[in-house]
Amino acid sequence: MNKLRYPPPGTAPATLIVPQEHQGQKPMVSLIEYDAHSIEERKVDTIDDLLSCLDNDKVSWINVHGLGDAQFFQQLGSHFRIHQLALEDIFNVGQRPKIEEYDHQLFIVLAMAYQNKEQEVVFEQVSMVLAEKFVITIQEDAGDVFDPVRQRLRERGGNARFMKADYLAYALIDAVIDGYFPIIESLGDSMDDLQETLLENPTRERVRQLHEFRRVIAQIRRAVWPQRDVLGRLMRDETGLVAVRTKPFFRDCYDHAVVMLDLLENFREHTRDIMDLYLSSINIRTSDILRVLTVISSIFIPLTFIAGVYGMNFDPKASPINMPELEWPFGYPFAICLMLAVAVGMIVFFRHKKWL
Amino acid sequence: MNKLRYPPPGTAPATLIVPQEHQGQKPMVSLIEYDAHSIEERKVDTIDDLLSCLDNDKVSWINVHGLGDAQFFQQLGSHFRIHQLALEDIFNVGQRPKIEEYDHQLFIVLAMAYQNKEQEVVFEQVSMVLAEKFVITIQEDAGDVFDPVRQRLRERGGNARFMKADYLAYALIDAVIDGYFPIIESLGDSMDDLQETLLENPTRERVRQLHEFRRVIAQIRRAVWPQRDVLGRLMRDETGLVAVRTKPFFRDCYDHAVVMLDLLENFREHTRDIMDLYLSSINIRTSDILRVLTVISSIFIPLTFIAGVYGMNFDPKASPINMPELEWPFGYPFAICLMLAVAVGMIVFFRHKKWL
Amino acid sequence: MNKLRYPPPGTAPATLIVPQEHQGQKPMVSLIEYDAHSIEERKVDTIDDLLSCLDNDKVSWINVHGLGDAQFFQQLGSHFRIHQLALEDIFNVGQRPKIEEYDHQLFIVLAMAYQNKEQEVVFEQVSMVLAEKFVITIQEDAGDVFDPVRQRLRERGGNARFMKADYLAYALIDAVIDGYFPIIESLGDSMDDLQETLLENPTRERVRQLHEFRRVIAQIRRAVWPQRDVLGRLMRDETGLVAVRTKPFFRDCYDHAVVMLDLLENFREHTRDIMDLYLSSINIRTSDILRVLTVISSIFIPLTFIAGVYGMNFDPKASPINMPELEWPFGYPFAICLMLAVAVGMIVFFRHKKWL
Amino acid sequence: MNKLRYPPPGTAPATLIVPQEHQGQKPMVSLIEYDAHSIEERKVDTIDDLLSCLDNDKVSWINVHGLGDAQFFQQLGSHFRIHQLALEDIFNVGQRPKIEEYDHQLFIVLAMAYQNKEQEVVFEQVSMVLAEKFVITIQEDAGDVFDPVRQRLRERGGNARFMKADYLAYALIDAVIDGYFPIIESLGDSMDDLQETLLENPTRERVRQLHEFRRVIAQIRRAVWPQRDVLGRLMRDETGLVAVRTKPFFRDCYDHAVVMLDLLENFREHTRDIMDLYLSSINIRTSDILRVLTVISSIFIPLTFIAGVYGMNFDPKASPINMPELEWPFGYPFAICLMLAVAVGMIVFFRHKKWL
Amino acid sequence: MNKLRYPPPGTAPATLIVPQEHQGQKPMVSLIEYDAHSIEERKVDTIDDLLSCLDNDKVSWINVHGLGDAQFFQQLGSHFRIHQLALEDIFNVGQRPKIEEYDHQLFIVLAMAYQNKEQEVVFEQVSMVLAEKFVITIQEDAGDVFDPVRQRLRERGGNARFMKADYLAYALIDAVIDGYFPIIESLGDSMDDLQETLLENPTRERVRQLHEFRRVIAQIRRAVWPQRDVLGRLMRDETGLVAVRTKPFFRDCYDHAVVMLDLLENFREHTRDIMDLYLSSINIRTSDILRVLTVISSIFIPLTFIAGVYGMNFDPKASPINMPELEWPFGYPFAICLMLAVAVGMIVFFRHKKWL
Repeated sequence: MNKLRYPPPGTAPATLIVPQEHQGQKPMVSLIEYDAHSIEERKVDTIDDLLSCLDNDKVSWINVHGLGDAQFFQQLGSHFRIHQLALEDIFNVGQRPKIEEYDHQLFIVLAMAYQNKEQEVVFEQVSMVLAEKFVITIQEDAGDVFDPVRQRLRERGGNARFMKADYLAYALIDAVIDGYFPIIESLGDSMDDLQETLLENPTRERVRQLHEFRRVIAQIRRAVWPQRDVLGRLMRDETGLVAVRTKPFFRDCYDHAVVMLDLLENFREHTRDIMDLYLSSINIRTSDILRVLTVISSIFIPLTFIAGVYGMNFDPKASPINMPELEWPFGYPFAICLMLAVAVGMIVFFRHKKWL
Repeated sequence: MNKLRYPPPGTAPATLIVPQEHQGQKPMVSLIEYDAHSIEERKVDTIDDLLSCLDNDKVSWINVHGLGDAQFFQQLGSHFRIHQLALEDIFNVGQRPKIEEYDHQLFIVLAMAYQNKEQEVVFEQVSMVLAEKFVITIQEDAGDVFDPVRQRLRERGGNARFMKADYLAYALIDAVIDGYFPIIESLGDSMDDLQETLLENPTRERVRQLHEFRRVIAQIRRAVWPQRDVLGRLMRDETGLVAVRTKPFFRDCYDHAVVMLDLLENFREHTRDIMDLYLSSINIRTSDILRVLTVISSIFIPLTFIAGVYGMNFDPKASPINMPELEWPFGYPFAICLMLAVAVGMIVFFRHKKWL
Repeated sequence: MNKLRYPPPGTAPATLIVPQEHQGQKPMVSLIEYDAHSIEERKVDTIDDLLSCLDNDKVSWINVHGLGDAQFFQQLGSHFRIHQLALEDIFNVGQRPKIEEYDHQLFIVLAMAYQNKEQEVVFEQVSMVLAEKFVITIQEDAGDVFDPVRQRLRERGGNARFMKADYLAYALIDAVIDGYFPIIESLGDSMDDLQETLLENPTRERVRQLHEFRRVIAQIRRAVWPQRDVLGRLMRDETGLVAVRTKPFFRDCYDHAVVMLDLLENFREHTRDIMDLYLSSINIRTSDILRVLTVISSIFIPLTFIAGVYGMNFDPKASPINMPELEWPFGYPFAICLMLAVAVGMIVFFRHKKWL
Repeated sequence: MNKLRYPPPGTAPATLIVPQEHQGQKPMVSLIEYDAHSIEERKVDTIDDLLSCLDNDKVSWINVHGLGDAQFFQQLGSHFRIHQLALEDIFNVGQRPKIEEYDHQLFIVLAMAYQNKEQEVVFEQVSMVLAEKFVITIQEDAGDVFDPVRQRLRERGGNARFMKADYLAYALIDAVIDGYFPIIESLGDSMDDLQETLLENPTRERVRQLHEFRRVIAQIRRAVWPQRDVLGRLMRDETGLVAVRTKPFFRDCYDHAVVMLDLLENFREHTRDIMDLYLSSINIRTSDILRVLTVISSIFIPLTFIAGVYGMNFDPKASPINMPELEWPFGYPFAICLMLAVAVGMIVFFRHKKWL
Repeated sequence: MNKLRYPPPGTAPATLIVPQEHQGQKPMVSLIEYDAHSIEERKVDTIDDLLSCLDNDKVSWINVHGLGDAQFFQQLGSHFRIHQLALEDIFNVGQRPKIEEYDHQLFIVLAMAYQNKEQEVVFEQVSMVLAEKFVITIQEDAGDVFDPVRQRLRERGGNARFMKADYLAYALIDAVIDGYFPIIESLGDSMDDLQETLLENPTRERVRQLHEFRRVIAQIRRAVWPQRDVLGRLMRDETGLVAVRTKPFFRDCYDHAVVMLDLLENFREHTRDIMDLYLSSINIRTSDILRVLTVISSIFIPLTFIAGVYGMNFDPKASPINMPELEWPFGYPFAICLMLAVAVGMIVFFRHKKWL
């Protein structure tokens, strides 16, 4: 999501290239097998340990994190008949969320989001393969939003244990989607803060923050939007991999995505409004500043001129028309009155203009 | 609508969690049973008192308010076969209006709106379950827009008593939808006020009000829009729960929603226009202020300069070219004429520019 | 269109409430019956006089104006089997144009527009019921755009007399739609005027007029748009009420509506462009004013400063470094030259900046 | 396109009214009949001369220009079975391009464009009737874009002579559509010019030109857009009038229209960008001007104040605290240093603000 | 893409006109024939050398560059049954990417993009004919993005050698599409640079660069968008030319195009945001400059006025009310205090306004 990762143009599809930052990361595999009666969890070391789960009647959930070993995934792919293009998408993380149908399998790419310690929103790709009897999830890093699901499986919470792999897939996708709610809520809070501070104390830094905020909203929107489509397709599934009684659950999850998109749209409009408010307040302020400048300048510049006139050094003695005012007994009061008249005239004019 | 309420990510669907502010609120249940001949209204204390209405041939309307007792709703759900996801939506108020089809039932979420004492628009979720013989409505608080419907039922007003549960559902939804009309009307009035005051006396406070106004319009729009879709689906119902002769009524109600959305769109455009008008009037005003500043400064600054020149103290006696004007007999009139010439030149220039 | 009229929320549908301003207005009914051979026109006083037209083979056009008598419309409705929701829409004038299908009838709401004496655009609702053998039109006030149609019927003009009720309906709707053409033409003219005056002489009043103009365009657009949809549905009619050979006429009328919407869209873009032009001309002007202010201030303020320096009263006699310039033989020319140098420097600088 | 022409509201459809400017213009008719072996061209005087072409097996192209004789068109219509609504559209030139299907005929309205001597884009309506064995084209004025087609027919160029009337229609429509290419190219050139001059030398006149340019683009777009739809319908024709092997040619022509719309969209965005660039350059310039004004004023106004202080005439002899500086031996250097300090301080401040 | 190239209006379709800049360029033809067992590459001089590939069972890839010989292409067209309209599109380079279906052939136009030495994005048309057993690609110039594909064919890399012509077409199209990734990545980098420099140091030049950047994004978008549609049609191919097992590959390639469009949309929004940020920072800066100007002017202009008053030359000896201050013992301190009071008052006022 954050960074564009793409295969070198022209390479054969399904060439698995371990990204540099994952190099040497050994895949960690855990397996949960359950039915209504029992549940078994274990760490798995080799692909062969996984093969048993293809035979029994339990639902198997294979979770992998770490993308450092291309060969492991090649084997995984060939054992579980994962299409080579799906394998490529698992490796080229940063895919757009999507759902693809292959023989007897649905391949789903999800974008899991969480806030890191700096409260920044981070996205991580979760790839999922849903078959009749198993679900495989592949993540980049350890740490995910699936712990409550594991807990429910262990404790027979809700329906999970009594239903099939499709319901497990639902529970996992639901956990990914609902993981956006707290993020959106915290964004809503910080937006309100931003509005206050921006309108109180507009600085370039705050405006930059607002734009950063808009960028994050757009990013989340771009992550949720295609996931809504994924859910829409799951709730209308025609492959037979999703049971009729599971579909309402996907519809519910779809509704959550719609609510989120609604909220994000809302945020977007709201930030646009804050921006408009802010710009108009800058304009009002500029107009205000200019008004003060104009009033003060317009009053005092003419007065200064009058004072300047009577500061001229023409010699009154050279001729009787050379600045006789200077020697009038009432010269000074006359000048003061002239100044007052000009000042009052200006003030009346500005009152009339409603600038005072 | 106002506040985002969401289940903790990862919890099993249909976990009913009583929201803190509803904690301890006992649900109040009232039951109205009627057919063309008779009508009976009563308060109900336990779920068991409701069960009778599943058997007889009358139309039953069960109205509940108060969300403080999860167990009560669990029982209600199991007796009336309400799907667990619908129950969850009843509890997580603040849902987007929607309609969902379950076995032999339609589950509808509506957003009821009213203005509180401070004239603020408040939204309250009304959930509705429509089955063949009963309608269940669940609200957060006491007080609703359904009293005229109750009155019509009691008085055999209109068709209500002669028709089935689908018509009752229509009457209730229609009451919710039509409840937006007075709100929209009062918004229209306050928009006109706002336009007047904003253009007369533009302050930052008014601009903020205008944006607040836009926010309310957007909020109502977001409430009405999905309800229009709900009505669209009801008027084309294919479940058989809505009789052919009831459909035109839903179409009528759908039309009301369309008219509202039209009006809200209208308001939205109009507020945008007011904003534009306002911004352009700020711009004109700034340009106006600057014109006055420029005219006055440009006239008097050169004059002051001339006065300043003749206020210099160069000694005319030091040489004949040292400010001989000061001792000319016509020095002062010459200076005054020079000033007049400059002033007139400036005025002519500004006239030419149409700034005067 | 202009004013929101809505039933009190919660009232039964089809409650006919005479609006206050229509109270006491007796409905005026006129009946035209015709076939290819004969035509008969008469004023009708009671509903019973109308019933004959249900039996004969002629086409009947019943035109009613005046909405002051709810009971009359109840009777009309029951005799001609008009659905109660259609009756309600007839009464609650200000409906959005629409078409609704009832048993063997099409109910159509149109918005007739004309310019009143103050050249304001006024809208009036025309409701129409189209059945196999009759057309009923209901208007608010006397005076309509149908006189040319009446004339054509009387004079056997065009096809009207040889065709059925559907063609009559077409002729009436066409008259309503084409009635928008002169209005749009006159709007086009006044837009051109507005453009001239706004760009010549921008005042806040003109900007307000432009926005008012935009509002009128939006209003007409909101009236024509749904009527286009009505026509679209009529030209693809599947009820059998519109004959195959009448459909091309509705298609023609539909094209007229499309042309109008095109023109209105055009006007809308054009007013937006005028507004942009206007705003940019304000900006250019502000920049222009500032340039003059800056040039004049920047030249004269330094000069005034120099004059001020040589106007200081330091005593040259106190020490040889105390303003010796004042007593230099060439002190004054020196000061003048200094000023000239500064002024020329400034002018060169502004020339370089292309501000002069 | 340029001017709204509409029938008087309420007149019967298909009333042919000769527009005033065409009054008295005698229609000029030319006929080209051809098959693979022979071709015959002649001027035709009366309708009867045309009738022969209905019988033979050749393809006939009847071209008419001049709309001054309603009776001629009535006859043409009745002989060639042209629908009265099509006839009306032929007369009310300025129609939106469209295609309409009548019995065994397609009626097509095209907008032919060319640049007149003043390089203005002028539109002219070309109406076309396509039947199995003939094509009729009707234009307002002499002079058209069809000469290359005539040449190809005479010279057996391309496929034209070996194919049917549908291919002739294609060739003519293609000539009309491709006629837009040189116009769009010349618009592209003048847009580049405009950009240069606007950004070099922004005047209100140039801005007006840019808007005029946008208006022309919008006009062409409104002409091409519906013609694209016409072509889309022809390339998917289901009337049987367009042969399967002609359809790829219409698809090709459709592609040309799509390319044009792409380019026009491109131009539109580009003019919007020029406008934005221009507005932002005005803003930068205003800010620049203000910076110069502020720097110069802020440096010299305080200096002038200091000079003013030492230009006051308080009598140092009245008391020792009355302007003793004036008589200090170092009074003048002190004042100059004070001024320098203030100036340097200001410059440092502006450097810090990055305004210098 | 860059330049509009169109046939002279009215010319017969499929007239092959060698564009002036290609005149005399001899077409260079290379042929690769392969099956799972063997691969043969050779340069071809005459059309006849190509004909063998129509007979054998291998997959043939004929690559041509150079458009200087119309006759060669006429022959190519007739031998390989390429439709004349396709041939015309091959020649009129600068076509919009598209796919067209002809008898047993798909004709595809692609836009190959690369960055030249000046880092400008350059587009080149690649035309492709896909038939059951061969693929023909025609380019303008030597040099393409197909070398990795050639390499894979030679080395049996991926699936290419084991599959049919449709897979070869996929590999080539995929190479063209993926060739956009590095360009988009480098655009992303330069956008980040631009943001930094624009906000640090806003000049008109930078704004122009930003607009240029937007133009490039729009250009790439216009190239990728129709190619996405081409891929969409290939992945849902119904002609039988694309095998079922090749379709997922086209779907994968389609996804790449979608990701690119997403990124480009992202860039577009981001540049819009940078522009907004930039404009608001200009506004803040203007307001800032004005604030400084206003504060300094408003403080010193009144002070200068006071100094001017006491610089007037009225003769205190002419009367006792003629500037007696000048001879007060505390005249000077009084004036200084007056000035201080005014200055402090102004500062307090500006503090109150939060301008200081």
